[in-house]
Amino acid sequence: MSAVLPRAVRELSAELTRLPGIGPKTAQRLALHVLRQQRGVTARLAETIATLHDRVQTCSVCYCLADDATCAICKDASRTQTTVCVVEDPLDVEAIERTGTYNGLYHVLGGVLSPMEGVGAEQLTLQELIDRVAKNNVEEVIIALEHNMEGEATTRHIISYLKNTPVSVTRLARGLPTGGDIEFADALTLTAAFSGRTKL
Amino acid sequence: MSAVLPRAVRELSAELTRLPGIGPKTAQRLALHVLRQQRGVTARLAETIATLHDRVQTCSVCYCLADDATCAICKDASRTQTTVCVVEDPLDVEAIERTGTYNGLYHVLGGVLSPMEGVGAEQLTLQELIDRVAKNNVEEVIIALEHNMEGEATTRHIISYLKNTPVSVTRLARGLPTGGDIEFADALTLTAAFSGRTKL
Repeated sequence: MSAVLPRAVRELSAELTRLPGIGPKTAQRLALHVLRQQRGVTARLAETIATLHDRVQTCSVCYCLADDATCAICKDASRTQTTVCVVEDPLDVEAIERTGTYNGLYHVLGGVLSPMEGVGAEQLTLQELIDRVAKNNVEEVIIALEHNMEGEATTRHIISYLKNTPVSVTRLARGLPTGGDIEFADALTLTAAFSGRTKL
Repeated sequence: MSAVLPRAVRELSAELTRLPGIGPKTAQRLALHVLRQQRGVTARLAETIATLHDRVQTCSVCYCLADDATCAICKDASRTQTTVCVVEDPLDVEAIERTGTYNGLYHVLGGVLSPMEGVGAEQLTLQELIDRVAKNNVEEVIIALEHNMEGEATTRHIISYLKNTPVSVTRLARGLPTGGDIEFADALTLTAAFSGRTKL
């Protein structure tokens, strides 16, 4: 950070570089943009950030972010209460909801098992998932985690905990994405697409 | 914006998409990142934004952003007071200062003439530049504006106002950038590099 720009701009730039994907140059540009806005716009941005923590809760049932103690999906009695889709974070819920394809409930783990990054079972809502399945007559747990090492480890963990229960555990199909060129598919995806091939 | 995420997160996302280069997806990701931070970190970001306008002033001499009524460069008596480099915005001042190559003063126009975007001479600090040159025994005005239509129009405007004064008006050389591959240079740059070629 140079000393040409005013202290306040440099301080805001420094705060903004803490955000993911924002380097020092982008941060400077953003800080100057904020400065050029009308005071009202800037005040509203500051206020929205300042009140964020107080306005957001975690759903006590599925651990998704929520406006109240229970999220809108968990409150919705018209959804299939016996199916629970396990995802890593709230953005996954949002992506699945956008498809309009799924009408069950969710369970947000808050991450995946990752010994490398120090994420163990106790940092996730895994125990809460097990308890919920046992208590609520859940019939199917659909695992919608990324197909990588951490996702696999987390999936195995869930399966091992649920294997003596009557609940059926499924996971999202692996294969070629729509519009994905076979030429550019990675080996693991291609292998999964072969082994999961369907009869026409 | 979906309705899955809490209202507060959606509102912050909406505010963030007003920033340049931030689309709805990035805004959502940033909003969730802010939410995951400790309260202290988030409060500091909000505070820095809220106080930005009050903490930043415009230098009364060169119109750069400043901590006080006069910027550090204009206050610095060791700089050559008779040379003024004309730039579009404060980030240009910062870029030039980083080179350590220039020891004169600056004049920040606050933009370039652009009839298309409704920017006329009265929106810029052009008259202030003319007044300053007349009053302060300026010997050289170095124009450091982008080489495009708006930059050219602004340059011509400055030249026309200063042509009956003894001040010498120069502008930064055009040519190939260091490390720039000739193969990838655009036609205008190459043409400028040819016409400005220097004898070895």
